Amino acid sequence: MPKFNRQHTLAVRPQGPAKLSDFKLVESAVPSLDDGQVVFRNTLFSIDPYQRNLMGNGSSEWPTIDIGDPMGGPTVGIVEESRNPEFAIGDHVQSWVGWQDYGLSDGSDLRKLDPTVAPLSTALGPLGLTGFTAWYGMTKLHDFKPSGTLVVTGAAGSVGSFAAQLGKLRGLRVVGVAGGADKVAYLKNKLGLDDAIDYKASDFKEQVARALPGGIDAFFENVGGPVFPVLMEHFNPHAKMTLCGTISDYSDTELPTGTNYLPRLITIIHYRFLDIKAFATPYVMDTFPEFLAEATPLVTDGRIKYGEEFVDGFDTLPETFLRLFDGSHSGRKLIVRNDRT
Amino acid sequence: MPKFNRQHTLAVRPQGPAKLSDFKLVESAVPSLDDGQVVFRNTLFSIDPYQRNLMGNGSSEWPTIDIGDPMGGPTVGIVEESRNPEFAIGDHVQSWVGWQDYGLSDGSDLRKLDPTVAPLSTALGPLGLTGFTAWYGMTKLHDFKPSGTLVVTGAAGSVGSFAAQLGKLRGLRVVGVAGGADKVAYLKNKLGLDDAIDYKASDFKEQVARALPGGIDAFFENVGGPVFPVLMEHFNPHAKMTLCGTISDYSDTELPTGTNYLPRLITIIHYRFLDIKAFATPYVMDTFPEFLAEATPLVTDGRIKYGEEFVDGFDTLPETFLRLFDGSHSGRKLIVRNDRT
Repeated sequence: MPKFNRQHTLAVRPQGPAKLSDFKLVESAVPSLDDGQVVFRNTLFSIDPYQRNLMGNGSSEWPTIDIGDPMGGPTVGIVEESRNPEFAIGDHVQSWVGWQDYGLSDGSDLRKLDPTVAPLSTALGPLGLTGFTAWYGMTKLHDFKPSGTLVVTGAAGSVGSFAAQLGKLRGLRVVGVAGGADKVAYLKNKLGLDDAIDYKASDFKEQVARALPGGIDAFFENVGGPVFPVLMEHFNPHAKMTLCGTISDYSDTELPTGTNYLPRLITIIHYRFLDIKAFATPYVMDTFPEFLAEATPLVTDGRIKYGEEFVDGFDTLPETFLRLFDGSHSGRKLIVRNDRT
Repeated sequence: MPKFNRQHTLAVRPQGPAKLSDFKLVESAVPSLDDGQVVFRNTLFSIDPYQRNLMGNGSSEWPTIDIGDPMGGPTVGIVEESRNPEFAIGDHVQSWVGWQDYGLSDGSDLRKLDPTVAPLSTALGPLGLTGFTAWYGMTKLHDFKPSGTLVVTGAAGSVGSFAAQLGKLRGLRVVGVAGGADKVAYLKNKLGLDDAIDYKASDFKEQVARALPGGIDAFFENVGGPVFPVLMEHFNPHAKMTLCGTISDYSDTELPTGTNYLPRLITIIHYRFLDIKAFATPYVMDTFPEFLAEATPLVTDGRIKYGEEFVDGFDTLPETFLRLFDGSHSGRKLIVRNDRT
């Protein structure tokens, strides 16, 4: 049976939230390799909120993929052909080729994985971009010291839960914010956070006040939207904020109306010396080895817990991705398993 | 003729913008001194925007004066009685006793002034809190390097014009923002800024685009209000912003409505790594001697120009203060001369 390479490509840039018709499934030949190259077959695909930004027409200001390009993102694959002495057939690799069956590389952008150290799927989650994002924002961007209260939004999500657990390991009091009673119970009972707030609850503001009697000293922001203006009132002087993402705004093409909270944020920065920092992982990958060295034992011995939800079938990639944005997603890392063997 | 001490005290906290009836003129005995103390008569009073914040009921989160207290702020005075060996009758001093004829001090909060070095009034302006505020925000909070474009809002004001001229002396391209054609002409022709923008002009946004073809690398914010959301679109990656003040918001007791620009500012911080810092002069007075050493020659030899507008009469203090907030003020440092001799 002749092999071919399926790709989920960008058909049109979304108008507002992404939808299935923004994608187009195309097939092409499997790439052929030259000296020094390897061809690998992708077995696992990472589903991440930032992929919405790659589609364009939203709040992001970073580069987008072109119409007709496959969706970008990390994958786990297995080497099928090699003319590179550093890679053997059967080697497991983590690549960045996105939503397609096959990838071609000279090896420089591949990370070899050892399945005896940790499950291969962790290379897309706690020992991949997900964990690295949390670790960098908690360690390198700001060094959150073991005192005071850390608030993490999107705390049941894969990045947020890693950040929250890192906060606990460093001796901070950690309060998680998530949507729904199930996630709040997960944060308190499974992750051992000190408190958790349900932003979907009718008494959200009262929960915030109860959970933050001493204010906020450190803040890991993953969400954006209407939750932030409520939380920002609780910043203590000299509070540090890591701006990791604002998933709730990614599909916005117009600004919201109503109360203009910008002057209030400026006032809080002015009088409380709030220190907000942001980062982008592509610029800081030089610290990835340091991250792996610290995080691997934490993940493999269970000091940092992580959740995964596997979905089977290459065809399901777009619909699985869309589940990130409708609020129904559990927060566990979504990974699509390829059915092509 | 028996002497008495006039004070302009806070009668009620303002509702919105301050007004004359928020003040009350009272008279009391001139303070009498103990060993180690001096009594001085105030001859010059500083009029500053932050004094609105001392009155309460506005956007500020810093301590206010109590009802019945005299308005706070810097003064220049002359020693009339001394039981402190470091001060002689006739010495010139800068104090912080605010809007009253006389002050009593043990000397620890007084700065001795030498009228042969610079005019005494400069101790309230370019060689006082005004210049210090600009210098600290341009030097210590952020160290604005000699490359790229600096934007200063409120650039015709006493703090802003000092900051803008410091920027020129450090080799930055400096664009000032001010209200009205006269101020724009002043910024270009008298202060020698590279460009100036009139935020009151109907083509304000076009002026911004024309003046900032290469974007903003450094920003000294004095104003707040609706001007900032227009300017923030022009921040370059890694731009640095000194948040000095937001005079246009000081009297706000409610947030504005309309477009909510908070998510847009968060997006700009997120994707352009905008670095916003704020400070408060009371916490950083240890650097005042360093400021004076650097600024005194710049001011006395004219490399930093400053404007002053003198108003005569203790009675005029409240009405002179109110001129800061109605947009009619020229931007020159307002100083009230006492008529008491």
